[in-house]
Amino acid sequence: MNTEKTKINSERIYKRAKEVLTGGVSRNTIFRKPHPYYVAKAEGSYIEDVEGNIRVDFANNMASLIHGHSHPKIIEAVTQQMKKGSAFTMGSEIEVSYAELLSERNKSFEKIRFMNSGTEAVMTMIKAARAYTGKSKIAKAEGTYHGTYDFAEISQTSNPSNWGEITSPNSVPVVEGTPKSVLDEVVIFHFNDLERTINTLDKFADEIACVILDLVPHRVGLIPAKKDYVEAIYKWTRENNTLLVFDEVVTYRANFSGAQENYTVQPDLTALGKIIGGGFPIGALAGKSEIMSVLDPTQKILKHPHSGTFSANPISTTAGYVAMNMFNRESVERLNNLTNIAKKQINESIKIADISACVTGVGSMFRIHFSSNKPKSFREAYQNVELRTVITDLLDYLFLKENIIMINTCSCMFATTLKQKDVDRLSEGLLNGFRIIKPKLEELSKHS
Amino acid sequence: MNTEKTKINSERIYKRAKEVLTGGVSRNTIFRKPHPYYVAKAEGSYIEDVEGNIRVDFANNMASLIHGHSHPKIIEAVTQQMKKGSAFTMGSEIEVSYAELLSERNKSFEKIRFMNSGTEAVMTMIKAARAYTGKSKIAKAEGTYHGTYDFAEISQTSNPSNWGEITSPNSVPVVEGTPKSVLDEVVIFHFNDLERTINTLDKFADEIACVILDLVPHRVGLIPAKKDYVEAIYKWTRENNTLLVFDEVVTYRANFSGAQENYTVQPDLTALGKIIGGGFPIGALAGKSEIMSVLDPTQKILKHPHSGTFSANPISTTAGYVAMNMFNRESVERLNNLTNIAKKQINESIKIADISACVTGVGSMFRIHFSSNKPKSFREAYQNVELRTVITDLLDYLFLKENIIMINTCSCMFATTLKQKDVDRLSEGLLNGFRIIKPKLEELSKHS
Repeated sequence: MNTEKTKINSERIYKRAKEVLTGGVSRNTIFRKPHPYYVAKAEGSYIEDVEGNIRVDFANNMASLIHGHSHPKIIEAVTQQMKKGSAFTMGSEIEVSYAELLSERNKSFEKIRFMNSGTEAVMTMIKAARAYTGKSKIAKAEGTYHGTYDFAEISQTSNPSNWGEITSPNSVPVVEGTPKSVLDEVVIFHFNDLERTINTLDKFADEIACVILDLVPHRVGLIPAKKDYVEAIYKWTRENNTLLVFDEVVTYRANFSGAQENYTVQPDLTALGKIIGGGFPIGALAGKSEIMSVLDPTQKILKHPHSGTFSANPISTTAGYVAMNMFNRESVERLNNLTNIAKKQINESIKIADISACVTGVGSMFRIHFSSNKPKSFREAYQNVELRTVITDLLDYLFLKENIIMINTCSCMFATTLKQKDVDRLSEGLLNGFRIIKPKLEELSKHS
Repeated sequence: MNTEKTKINSERIYKRAKEVLTGGVSRNTIFRKPHPYYVAKAEGSYIEDVEGNIRVDFANNMASLIHGHSHPKIIEAVTQQMKKGSAFTMGSEIEVSYAELLSERNKSFEKIRFMNSGTEAVMTMIKAARAYTGKSKIAKAEGTYHGTYDFAEISQTSNPSNWGEITSPNSVPVVEGTPKSVLDEVVIFHFNDLERTINTLDKFADEIACVILDLVPHRVGLIPAKKDYVEAIYKWTRENNTLLVFDEVVTYRANFSGAQENYTVQPDLTALGKIIGGGFPIGALAGKSEIMSVLDPTQKILKHPHSGTFSANPISTTAGYVAMNMFNRESVERLNNLTNIAKKQINESIKIADISACVTGVGSMFRIHFSSNKPKSFREAYQNVELRTVITDLLDYLFLKENIIMINTCSCMFATTLKQKDVDRLSEGLLNGFRIIKPKLEELSKHS
């Protein structure tokens, strides 16, 4: 608890922040108006800010904490490792033990390589796919977030003014000044729309190194990929000498061996990150030995040289090992059950508040949409400025009045430290919030 | 000390590693034949492997540890922060305090943004330069390493078979399957060669978003950029609406405010990493407010959206803050003086061994070359396979017989924990090593 409230508060910290950090933040995700709030301490599912407000955390650092904050077993293991060092130009046994643990979880993880973020994992995955196939284009679904590597981020923020025909969505840059040549290397398809997707892929059949799929893409609407859709794309990739690669940076939390456990298809490569770091920076690429061998320095020809100063550092791998070891089948089941209860209770709140809304999601993840029917695609899930304003009002109300932290897309990513009482608080807080935004939602629906 | 020598050794760990990590390693830098060695514990400048051998560390995890291993002040601060949490979807005061500390060090660091690695820092720097200028090409020196973002890595591993004319060096891919379009976006110039560099830049004057300089590029030969060279390039960028950006991921250790302190020019942007993480994963972009504002989410138009799950996490920023706070002017001077003594002693060893060799470097960094005269460029510093084999023999001898760890380019990156006795051991070990490789060096010089 902060005892000197006159000396420290978030507004004052932010004032200093604006002098040295562009826009006052180092990650846009923490930005909120009129200023971000700063953490004093966090434990389990509770975060206390410097003002002394304690909030329940349903965001878990953008889905990256599967056991909440400051888990004692992770702290203990990292403290022990820290005393032995945090990074060397030599190996650490823990990187081997951790690779063993992950490779036991997934049949498709024949070989693994660690890096420092999900962005690096996806970048390495794409470069490895190009190195293996000798082709240069990649195909991705409109609206999916795959980190900030430019090829991977194309069309993540497409909007009605630029997304083009649904039959052949435009390659839309996220960052100004993105080279036109990058746009040309990225083929955009319409998620979960089998016929249109295959038609799009067919047009570039000889040029595509990999088709990237997020099986439950958060930014698309947290809508699961249909099973026949995934199988048909897999078949297409087999027929066209293309790799099928999964981005499970977010979705690995969805089941014991990731969202891919819910499908029959084995991907060629999988990008990992977030929860596998146990709260510390990490990324990983896992996949079939033959493909992963492009990164193998013992090969006669090393197609894809790759290192990284902090890759596989013993802190992130120790924290990740402990976290994933605790995230066993029983723990996954308990977490996913609690999340399902939360979804049910929120659906009740929606009913009681009598608003047009629905809940999508898989495993420990869900997202609330303000439409009666679940959106089927990025374009259906798209929120215009007016709707986004209403959602921000709701999230601000929850944050400031109900002391509930959600993700800015109106999503929750649960942790094993959450309890039924937290879920009750969430569904009650949302009910109150729904009632507050109801008039605005009705106003919007009149104009649409 | 490992008491169960029959149960654990590096060979056995590597055997397990080969089953789950491609090539048995997660970073090629730790690979050595017949197998890497695994660390049991490290403290200060000493690393003990699982076999119980204790070595003096002159590599410092590829230049990233400025205070050696397991510094008690860093451990203490990180332990305290860990108990309060390692990552949130909210702010941490330490990210502000750390940005203040760095921005006080360098006039050009008006605004800062943290990320997770040097690779991410350089990628964000290039994307920001494109967003600010609206141009898409970048220019970089042949042979420089700027991380694994494909645009940044082009021509890092050029060799006589593919590097082309010195007047206009080829854009050579590092990774197989690199899109031709990426090669076309990268202009390669000949480092420290003013006339040729300006001629090359002039050819693409309207298209270059930024010229990236590493002021003492390790892979080029750890040769400092000439002052008039840097000033002339700066002038060229002012005349051509181009940014001059520095990659100081490695070289920030060279002086109190980086290698740029040794020059009069203020860069538009600087990429940071390595030592600023205090042994934990980090990257950062720093630069002029006006340019950094492309990343500012409070701007009316956000040209370059950027977040990152672990960006500015309070563990890396806490460790970095403590490390850089301790790396004050006095500490920098002491470290650089000791490094100069080491260079002198090694020059003595070269003389006594009577071999053709010399030492390049700045601040706490140096590299040994096996030529009488200091190389002036990447092409002059280039080591062919035969020479590389001899250098590997030397480094293996040092590692296995003298218990000395150097970087595989025959370089050292010093830490403040090193003492005169360690330097004596290094120069003596090198003298013994030089004597062993002398016949092979003489053999090579006959054929060249």
